[in-house]
Amino acid sequence: MTENPLHAIMHPRSVVIAGASNNFLKMGSIQAMNLLHGGYHGEILFLHPTEKTVLGRPSYRTAAELPFAPELALLTTPTRVTPGLLDDLGKRGVRYAVITTAGFREMGPEGARLEAELSDIAARHGMRFVGPNCIGVLNAHEGMNLTVCPYTDPPGRLGLISQSGTYVAQTMPYLRDNGIRYSQAISVGNATSIDVVDCLDYLGNDSNTAAIAMYIEGIRRGREFLATATRVARRKPLVALYVGGSQAGARSSQSHTGSLGSPDRLFDGVCAQAGIVRASAVDEMFGWGHALANMPLPRGRRVAILTHSGGPATSMADACERNGLEVPEFSPALQSRIRAFLEPTASAKNPVDLTFVMGQESFIDKIPELLFTSDEIDAVLVHGMMDTGFASEMYKVAGHIFGISREDFIKPMEFDLTRLLELPARYGKPLVASNFLREDHAAETFRDRGVPLFRTPEAAVKALAALARAGEFRKRTEA
Amino acid sequence: MTENPLHAIMHPRSVVIAGASNNFLKMGSIQAMNLLHGGYHGEILFLHPTEKTVLGRPSYRTAAELPFAPELALLTTPTRVTPGLLDDLGKRGVRYAVITTAGFREMGPEGARLEAELSDIAARHGMRFVGPNCIGVLNAHEGMNLTVCPYTDPPGRLGLISQSGTYVAQTMPYLRDNGIRYSQAISVGNATSIDVVDCLDYLGNDSNTAAIAMYIEGIRRGREFLATATRVARRKPLVALYVGGSQAGARSSQSHTGSLGSPDRLFDGVCAQAGIVRASAVDEMFGWGHALANMPLPRGRRVAILTHSGGPATSMADACERNGLEVPEFSPALQSRIRAFLEPTASAKNPVDLTFVMGQESFIDKIPELLFTSDEIDAVLVHGMMDTGFASEMYKVAGHIFGISREDFIKPMEFDLTRLLELPARYGKPLVASNFLREDHAAETFRDRGVPLFRTPEAAVKALAALARAGEFRKRTEA
Repeated sequence: MTENPLHAIMHPRSVVIAGASNNFLKMGSIQAMNLLHGGYHGEILFLHPTEKTVLGRPSYRTAAELPFAPELALLTTPTRVTPGLLDDLGKRGVRYAVITTAGFREMGPEGARLEAELSDIAARHGMRFVGPNCIGVLNAHEGMNLTVCPYTDPPGRLGLISQSGTYVAQTMPYLRDNGIRYSQAISVGNATSIDVVDCLDYLGNDSNTAAIAMYIEGIRRGREFLATATRVARRKPLVALYVGGSQAGARSSQSHTGSLGSPDRLFDGVCAQAGIVRASAVDEMFGWGHALANMPLPRGRRVAILTHSGGPATSMADACERNGLEVPEFSPALQSRIRAFLEPTASAKNPVDLTFVMGQESFIDKIPELLFTSDEIDAVLVHGMMDTGFASEMYKVAGHIFGISREDFIKPMEFDLTRLLELPARYGKPLVASNFLREDHAAETFRDRGVPLFRTPEAAVKALAALARAGEFRKRTEA
Repeated sequence: MTENPLHAIMHPRSVVIAGASNNFLKMGSIQAMNLLHGGYHGEILFLHPTEKTVLGRPSYRTAAELPFAPELALLTTPTRVTPGLLDDLGKRGVRYAVITTAGFREMGPEGARLEAELSDIAARHGMRFVGPNCIGVLNAHEGMNLTVCPYTDPPGRLGLISQSGTYVAQTMPYLRDNGIRYSQAISVGNATSIDVVDCLDYLGNDSNTAAIAMYIEGIRRGREFLATATRVARRKPLVALYVGGSQAGARSSQSHTGSLGSPDRLFDGVCAQAGIVRASAVDEMFGWGHALANMPLPRGRRVAILTHSGGPATSMADACERNGLEVPEFSPALQSRIRAFLEPTASAKNPVDLTFVMGQESFIDKIPELLFTSDEIDAVLVHGMMDTGFASEMYKVAGHIFGISREDFIKPMEFDLTRLLELPARYGKPLVASNFLREDHAAETFRDRGVPLFRTPEAAVKALAALARAGEFRKRTEA
């Protein structure tokens, strides 16, 4: 078996960039800056027809002048010069490339001819490349960021394969807001030399990647995709957002990456057979992928709901039933053990609704422990914790009345979440949360520690349903 | 016709608060602080059995000792003393109350008996009250906030009626993050004296409220609800989140507000007949309500999509079709007018995908104007603007290379959105947007100026579909 070319592309010891300049509004320059300042330890060289230095580093006029053959080339060059440049790089001994340049197959027959030229040149030199018409690749564990957006979070466990560059790069601030972290991310673009199947095979073997999310507009190698996905899904949960199934989606994807979609139902069949959880929106793809990468898969569909708030409790219960999850009423024995920690007006049936009481340890320690150790449930949903976020809100009106400093007011509201964070792995049950407060110590801790945190109760339930589906796929292959 | 009691409750010239103290962790104190510091101009009095002053203001021991009869009483008192206190207030001449105290019908037979006592007392004195078991009310245009969360945004155009207190109050930081602003919000709780129907009638006549969102666990006066909703929906769009239709939702709502849900299909029928757009999650209820309150209703289902990014373009096109919207290919004439503003690799068919180019005026001025004035489409979707948010991201890596100040780097990226913001009202077509960047000048401007802004392309499409549905309800009643 030949080694997957992505191994070399995602771990290069040297990169040459063509298309970067000293104009920081240009895409190539932005990619270069992200590589220069993303923590990458390899060597970085520049190619530029006229500039002597690029971004403060020496630049070479032609591929032939490069002092050695870099392990990877990044091309963000005008379309017409790109094939010639790839040829020159091949002659210089470069074997791998990422081509972000657009204007190929997605632009019609003339572009398709140019794209075929790229293929011929690569074949002649034994080269493999990602793209063209992509936005670059990221290996967060290597600090190697060839995309257009800085990646500033620590590396994570979610791998991404995307036929949209935006979903690899411009979503990074969104992912950061939600504590979602990449292991590696690959924008496949027109997938001329390296396609989704190659990426799936590669990330399937990457030890830093615990789950894989895919954004798909169309699949060319259907049979290979099914076989590879089936094999990978046995070890790693897969989630896919497929948008090529509608007429409007297919037309848009045609002018985007030149992909041809196949009917929705066909893709549904592939998902069911391979064991891919299908998402219906980009936030689901990321949020579910994040949950799949960081939480154990539940062994069943019985959910416990814990909250301060009746509305979110009811929303969660309702959404569970609509998404195939169960919210069993707890046994009298479990209810009475929970009730020991509740106010008289609170409910212990499931949902457990503590009602409006601030600063309770029962919420984060005692009751979760009862739920995680119980054999009556397979997963735990938590909404709202009223940690420092609510206190911050209150400080706006309470601060001047009580003449108390912000820190003195807010600090005592910080929960110690250590024990709670250990429960999912210890008992093999996922914890999924939602919270309306963004700036909140508990929310920040969840985001920082890989607990999937959503902004609405319903979104948390849907993510848990995705975990349950992945759990059932897993059981089926284990049987 | 008797005047709706909510008019008095939502515009009181004086409020007496029972249940506030100098312990700022207590719910009553929090409500009092929100009233004291929310901009309310009326008189505020306190009732407390032992404290001489509450939150720095004189407090009275009994209702009889109050210097005059306040126009509204807020009760956040222990359950058992609440009926007696209501009686005392009634004797003192108070006619309207908001009772946040819990522990009534939702707690079983003994609670139900206490709740009946509240009704009897109110009947005896000719009183009307919101609650019990609610979280208070907000009239943002009066600065009157009797809820547990500070409301810090300017007043808006969305009215909320909710059987969950959390969705009135604890969601406020979430609403602020999304530029969603209340005109008024009412937490009905157990709805003993004032129910959803009363609220709907009242907000239907409120000139500050342009659309009404409802969170419903169960409806007691079905016939009146249908009649009132039908009447109000002729003038104001209505959106409802109904969670009482599932078994799990019904059980949870029973212990939440003592509501009894009816089957889902029945509620669907009510929505179709009355002209209520039905949401399926709390973010939809708020986001759609916000869009309905701030954008003109489209006259048809033909949508133009404008973006920098092929992935979101395709996601939007796909989501449009799945949600009953059309993304027609533009006429050759319109395409050629649009193409004048595009790079050669960009697409003008619809979606219009400008591809990765920064700082274009065409995005915000020229192309939107062509779309809004065209008779080929009824609504405009925009994803991503690459305004200052992307520049802020880039400054992290570019700042030290170019030795440029943050402001000099970011300021030139600010778009002037004045013309764009005028287009929806001028041409009677809604503008709905999405953006992965939270901190961004364009995003902030949209949030501040009432343009519905969502974090994913799919969420923007669903909101537009809600507008289209409301537009069709409107057409039906006009026909």
